[in-house]
Amino acid sequence: MIKIYGKNCVYAAIHAKSKLETVFVCNDILRKDNNIVSLLKNMKLNHRIVDKNFMDKEFGEGNQGYGAYREDYKIYDIDSLNLLPKEKGRVLILDGIQDPHNLGAIIRSVDAFGYDMIILPKNNSVSVNKTVAHISTGAIEYTKIMYVNSLLNVVNKLKDMGYWICGTDASGNVLSSQIDKTLNLAIIIGSEGFGMSKTLVKASDFLISIPMKGHVNSLNASVSTGIVLHDLMAD
Amino acid sequence: MIKIYGKNCVYAAIHAKSKLETVFVCNDILRKDNNIVSLLKNMKLNHRIVDKNFMDKEFGEGNQGYGAYREDYKIYDIDSLNLLPKEKGRVLILDGIQDPHNLGAIIRSVDAFGYDMIILPKNNSVSVNKTVAHISTGAIEYTKIMYVNSLLNVVNKLKDMGYWICGTDASGNVLSSQIDKTLNLAIIIGSEGFGMSKTLVKASDFLISIPMKGHVNSLNASVSTGIVLHDLMAD
Repeated sequence: MIKIYGKNCVYAAIHAKSKLETVFVCNDILRKDNNIVSLLKNMKLNHRIVDKNFMDKEFGEGNQGYGAYREDYKIYDIDSLNLLPKEKGRVLILDGIQDPHNLGAIIRSVDAFGYDMIILPKNNSVSVNKTVAHISTGAIEYTKIMYVNSLLNVVNKLKDMGYWICGTDASGNVLSSQIDKTLNLAIIIGSEGFGMSKTLVKASDFLISIPMKGHVNSLNASVSTGIVLHDLMAD
Repeated sequence: MIKIYGKNCVYAAIHAKSKLETVFVCNDILRKDNNIVSLLKNMKLNHRIVDKNFMDKEFGEGNQGYGAYREDYKIYDIDSLNLLPKEKGRVLILDGIQDPHNLGAIIRSVDAFGYDMIILPKNNSVSVNKTVAHISTGAIEYTKIMYVNSLLNVVNKLKDMGYWICGTDASGNVLSSQIDKTLNLAIIIGSEGFGMSKTLVKASDFLISIPMKGHVNSLNASVSTGIVLHDLMAD
């Protein structure tokens, strides 16, 4: 069971018909939101109207008066690669993302640009927690997330399935505009501090870089991911 | 005076020759980083080697063993619009950004893509604090930030200076690829919760949207900003 919170996150779980044990609504938002109670009744969802004290204690900062006990998010394993489309498939591989704010923002982009799946290594990654869910503003309800033992193994399987592997690195010599968007693509983004692992750089078919001209010359991980996902979105 | 912290942030302040009253280095990082002390001595910077307890108390989470007392960041006012270039100028206007993490990540993108200035309204915006500086990983040292009383006033002045105003909104009917990149451009990004104000939508010469096809159909503010800044970067 996971505690989810925030208006968008709770509404998305309701609309996605996710299994919710109890939904909590703060009494002080009922004046502003006169749909929520009838929606919960229509959906036959167990719910409680509580006070701000309860909400803040149970769900913490950023709850906005909405919370729920939700069943754990479904986590996929490597056997689910066959769920990927045969044409114009889009997979995002995150090679060691640590920050829940980054993962949450990335999930939003993955949903917004119609990507099919996110794949992370079991070791050395942030897990799907309530902060990730909150920052995703509910996009997590529509995103397939897979954790695997070995990213190299996944990359090899994806190649067998006809996917092209696009690594991303400042040393890359390919612009995303040069990639054929009718292909099946798996995009790899490195970790916040260290970038992509050498093994995955070597396994990539292309190495993409984002042109920059500043002093610091690096972007926030969720920003660079958003730029590449946007550029390589299937038509 | 502002307390800055984190390796990138402190190094950037040193390299940018910003006025640092004292630099603090944690004794337990001296083994990993044997440049810092000689750099501080060469730059004739007042510094202290301290223990982890001191660092955590004085600079909080995320200090990575580096901190400094820096003079306040220079904040520009409307009289500094004349610092903008006459050709291929690039200004970012943030219409009500509240979250210091978003502003920090946006400053990184502004530096990375060679933009000239960020303009924010005095009311209803996050101010430049130590979290913003930290998240910018030092890019703030190279970014001109202006706070003004009225964004509409600034927009009108920018128009007089030959800048074209590109608003961003989901209802926009222009793609960033359709904008002539040889122009002087002022890009407006709306607030996290409410988007752009109606007055600024009306004052815009173009209204750009980012094509999306997901369920939630909105992006993190720093991600959407990064995408638009990248797309409209001057050649």
